[in-house]
Amino acid sequence: MAPQYAQSLRFRLPPLLFFLQTGFIVVFRFYVDIEQNVQTKQHAFNNYYSEFQDVHVMVILGFGFLATFLVRYSFSGAGFTLLVAAMAVQWAVILNGVESMYHRGKIRINMRSLVVAEMCTASSLIAIGAVLGKTNPVHLLLIALLEISGFVLNGWLLQTFLKVQFLNTIMLLHIFGAFFGLMLSWVLYRQGSEQQHEKEKIDRKTGLFSVMGTLFLWMFWPSFNSVLVEVDHLDRGRSLRAVYSTYLALAVSAVTAAGFSVLTSPQGKLNLFHIQRCTLAGGVAIGVAMSAVHLPWVAMAIGFAAALISTLGSRYIKPLMLFAFECHDTCGVLSVHGLPGILGWMVQLLLQIADSDDLTMAVRFAVFHICTLLITLSLSMSLGLITGFLLKCNFWRPTQNKKCFDDQAFWEFPHLAGKR
Amino acid sequence: MAPQYAQSLRFRLPPLLFFLQTGFIVVFRFYVDIEQNVQTKQHAFNNYYSEFQDVHVMVILGFGFLATFLVRYSFSGAGFTLLVAAMAVQWAVILNGVESMYHRGKIRINMRSLVVAEMCTASSLIAIGAVLGKTNPVHLLLIALLEISGFVLNGWLLQTFLKVQFLNTIMLLHIFGAFFGLMLSWVLYRQGSEQQHEKEKIDRKTGLFSVMGTLFLWMFWPSFNSVLVEVDHLDRGRSLRAVYSTYLALAVSAVTAAGFSVLTSPQGKLNLFHIQRCTLAGGVAIGVAMSAVHLPWVAMAIGFAAALISTLGSRYIKPLMLFAFECHDTCGVLSVHGLPGILGWMVQLLLQIADSDDLTMAVRFAVFHICTLLITLSLSMSLGLITGFLLKCNFWRPTQNKKCFDDQAFWEFPHLAGKR
Amino acid sequence: MAPQYAQSLRFRLPPLLFFLQTGFIVVFRFYVDIEQNVQTKQHAFNNYYSEFQDVHVMVILGFGFLATFLVRYSFSGAGFTLLVAAMAVQWAVILNGVESMYHRGKIRINMRSLVVAEMCTASSLIAIGAVLGKTNPVHLLLIALLEISGFVLNGWLLQTFLKVQFLNTIMLLHIFGAFFGLMLSWVLYRQGSEQQHEKEKIDRKTGLFSVMGTLFLWMFWPSFNSVLVEVDHLDRGRSLRAVYSTYLALAVSAVTAAGFSVLTSPQGKLNLFHIQRCTLAGGVAIGVAMSAVHLPWVAMAIGFAAALISTLGSRYIKPLMLFAFECHDTCGVLSVHGLPGILGWMVQLLLQIADSDDLTMAVRFAVFHICTLLITLSLSMSLGLITGFLLKCNFWRPTQNKKCFDDQAFWEFPHLAGKR
Repeated sequence: MAPQYAQSLRFRLPPLLFFLQTGFIVVFRFYVDIEQNVQTKQHAFNNYYSEFQDVHVMVILGFGFLATFLVRYSFSGAGFTLLVAAMAVQWAVILNGVESMYHRGKIRINMRSLVVAEMCTASSLIAIGAVLGKTNPVHLLLIALLEISGFVLNGWLLQTFLKVQFLNTIMLLHIFGAFFGLMLSWVLYRQGSEQQHEKEKIDRKTGLFSVMGTLFLWMFWPSFNSVLVEVDHLDRGRSLRAVYSTYLALAVSAVTAAGFSVLTSPQGKLNLFHIQRCTLAGGVAIGVAMSAVHLPWVAMAIGFAAALISTLGSRYIKPLMLFAFECHDTCGVLSVHGLPGILGWMVQLLLQIADSDDLTMAVRFAVFHICTLLITLSLSMSLGLITGFLLKCNFWRPTQNKKCFDDQAFWEFPHLAGKR
Repeated sequence: MAPQYAQSLRFRLPPLLFFLQTGFIVVFRFYVDIEQNVQTKQHAFNNYYSEFQDVHVMVILGFGFLATFLVRYSFSGAGFTLLVAAMAVQWAVILNGVESMYHRGKIRINMRSLVVAEMCTASSLIAIGAVLGKTNPVHLLLIALLEISGFVLNGWLLQTFLKVQFLNTIMLLHIFGAFFGLMLSWVLYRQGSEQQHEKEKIDRKTGLFSVMGTLFLWMFWPSFNSVLVEVDHLDRGRSLRAVYSTYLALAVSAVTAAGFSVLTSPQGKLNLFHIQRCTLAGGVAIGVAMSAVHLPWVAMAIGFAAALISTLGSRYIKPLMLFAFECHDTCGVLSVHGLPGILGWMVQLLLQIADSDDLTMAVRFAVFHICTLLITLSLSMSLGLITGFLLKCNFWRPTQNKKCFDDQAFWEFPHLAGKR
Repeated sequence: MAPQYAQSLRFRLPPLLFFLQTGFIVVFRFYVDIEQNVQTKQHAFNNYYSEFQDVHVMVILGFGFLATFLVRYSFSGAGFTLLVAAMAVQWAVILNGVESMYHRGKIRINMRSLVVAEMCTASSLIAIGAVLGKTNPVHLLLIALLEISGFVLNGWLLQTFLKVQFLNTIMLLHIFGAFFGLMLSWVLYRQGSEQQHEKEKIDRKTGLFSVMGTLFLWMFWPSFNSVLVEVDHLDRGRSLRAVYSTYLALAVSAVTAAGFSVLTSPQGKLNLFHIQRCTLAGGVAIGVAMSAVHLPWVAMAIGFAAALISTLGSRYIKPLMLFAFECHDTCGVLSVHGLPGILGWMVQLLLQIADSDDLTMAVRFAVFHICTLLITLSLSMSLGLITGFLLKCNFWRPTQNKKCFDDQAFWEFPHLAGKR
């Protein structure tokens, strides 16, 4: 009985961390270099470091504090996000550089590679959102590394075989992460999750910490959607358009989410979960559709539609997923990232068709665009399934049901005041 | 009795939100465009986006979390600020563009217009601070839209008839917002508010969230005061002077507020309310006086004086307003924005007169300057009164006394842990 | 008995604050000016203001909220940091300008002088970390002013007599602050501190506020280490290298600290204190070693080593210091700033020797480098001792034991909900 009781991470987590970290240092020793030739792009960089910082803040603080909402799981929410992100960016830098390693023998670190790495990390943090509280940090690390590998592979496939632009492949991070996480939570489903876990609650203060995470995401999302536009095109106009579009879409999204939250509530009240997450749906949708959006009102309409389906999804589809498909999605990533992402994809398709003069081109674009989505969905879902089955092995010591959503399984509380 | 009990927002808030939001999208469809010609001003923009972000953070996170201090009203404080701000920026973009719509047929969105919109939003959030906790979100939205309309009208009047510089009119936002809110709280006064409401308290944690909001305001205020200087003058030196002056004024303000807080306390202790708000008074005063301040020590002296009157105001004038004038000002906007704003106005007058060689010019300036204040005060106060009487209509369902300062009236708490 | 009971700050704090503040304003009146000639350096400044903001956020919000972890001392942690920082930057601007005052008659305020002042302030906040909760704000102010004086003196000595580069002297702030604070806490040791004070605990929410402070430090540390590189060298390549190195070192540091925290825990769990502080050790070490680090993997290895010694130090040396040396170090500054700083110093020595072709040069460098450390250590420790004895005077009213770690000694709680 004893070993089953002992939840200790001692013989699982540190060896994994040290093995991976040492491995990364060795890889960096032989294959990674800092880009020296920055003079030519100096001007481009001027805006760039502060936008990188915004993305960094979104990933570490935004996602980190968004995950603190569970009343007894807030240390884990913020702490594991930091741990996973610190590991994942290194892995993403390496994976994204593999191609340039073939050509130039070295992976170059520059602002762009760090931003791309942060975005891959964001993708893995979305996936983790679906299984938050039901897994231990060893699981989370494996999920993050596998998800990033799949996402980078997906981007490479799309760029190589379908000639999709890099910027468009990277913005699929929401769709990829969400469906990966969804499959994961389906495989890792625990009997009895239909009843809400006693600890799967918020309180006033953890709710507020979580709102803080939301606000950081909401405020800096324009940088998230525009930063790579600028780097890749060196066209300030396009990048500014991305900023304005995202800003407007998010503003409309916040208003719409509040409206539908009250409208669908039996008591006619606001739901904090909707305010926290569905306000962000506009940023997701506009990010995916970005390259086709030229007018401010289109961005606003996208924000409206995204918040609509996100709020309805949170209210009606999330319980349905739980009861009908046995899929327990802690952070609601399907309705926050998955559905708005697909909406953005559809809007992009429609706008591109409407914009093109030539029917052949339009059909050709549509076929490619649909293939893009199908490949992304099938790759993310199949990898999610595989990852899920891998984690089901007893070797990784799944968290016991009664220890779910509880910091106590993972954190020392020697100095904690009051009741533990 | 039942309808009186039902506080439901269902038939008030969503229709208003959807009506306004759809209207805004339609207006943006026909009249709003993104500025394309950014090449010429590219250099100027380089610093500009990150300063815009600072202002954005101040409005959303700074004001939002500053409003979380009430122990049972913190979701509303942060959430309603987000909702109101998301709506208000769209309205402000439209209103500020009306003039250019006449001339060019289109409203142009660019960084400057967004910054100006954020500042108008800040003005409305100041007004809302005076009635926080005693109103529902429908009220808050109406207040914000009316306040912004009045503030834009005020700016237009001053620029057109008194030839006041744009930058000087926009910095009156503190005075306009504070006196608008003050009149509002006078009209909406509830019998029995002399005794402190049982829920009008802070606790250790909401106090700390609120300190966080304060710090974000305090840290980024130099951007708030300098961002439009740069855009409008393309003179980095002037904009830097605004940064340094604000920085020094705020530092002195923080020290002085702490000193007077202890000095005026019967127990010789610090008061959190003073530390949260009066530390910001220096930023308000220097913002209003900015165009006349050339020397660092003058900025510091202004910071000292602003914190002095703000702390004394919070300690002595706030209770006086409540008992003598039946004016219950939740966030103390009179002593945080109103009085320091008027101080800044006075310092600007004195410095301009001292600087001018010509007596005629000085007198002329003084007359114009006094007219500026009088117009601003009378417009803000009369509009505040009108708005207040409008909101007194039973149609908008005023919050019951016992539901004041309580999230429960507006938020679902299905997942809340512990006692509700 | 009465005067001993009365902890009132009324006759201590306000006079000190007003005296110092008035003095500073007078000094600024006669000796401080704003740098006007910014046109030539305009380009350099473009990135610079946002990096200054990052440093500002680290000092005010990062250090401020890092200090909120004590369950009953969080107002003091955040509030006193703000108060001390607001005073200390003014003092640091003056002291750092003394030399230029001799040459040019005036102290010039520009972005560089503010960044340097913020860094001196950071140094004093590190020192304060060691005595947090056991001192009153009057003590804290005196400590900060004396520490900064010592640190500026130390930098001047090293630059003048050992020709150490300015950038290298400023990065000794971690070592100087930590050992200053350590000596201070030794002198101010209270009998009975071997048993943990009943209030020296965290709870879930203050822990989370403190994590927020950590994350701000963690996220913006690349700016902290790179900002002065750029200003002083106008070489974007060097400054970017500092950004990348710090970024990687911090990522590795976070992973490693988590690993060792679990490994050294008897229960195999994470310790929040380690996650909060030891994750930052990489930033400290790389900051000190910066000028010699050219390759990304070296930065990562430094991050690994720094987190290792920091975690082991927190686990094993901190209790040892308490029991063997009677040195009670509230925030663990020895293991977070002291030891990683010395590690960085050692790495710099080794790398410089390895890089130099000439043996004579290497020996010469080694001698100078060792002298640098010895001077810094002896100056910081002796000044810490002197400051400690100064504060032991009864005149400053030391906090009673039972009032330690308690906001109630310093803050009014008239509006506080629930139990006090």
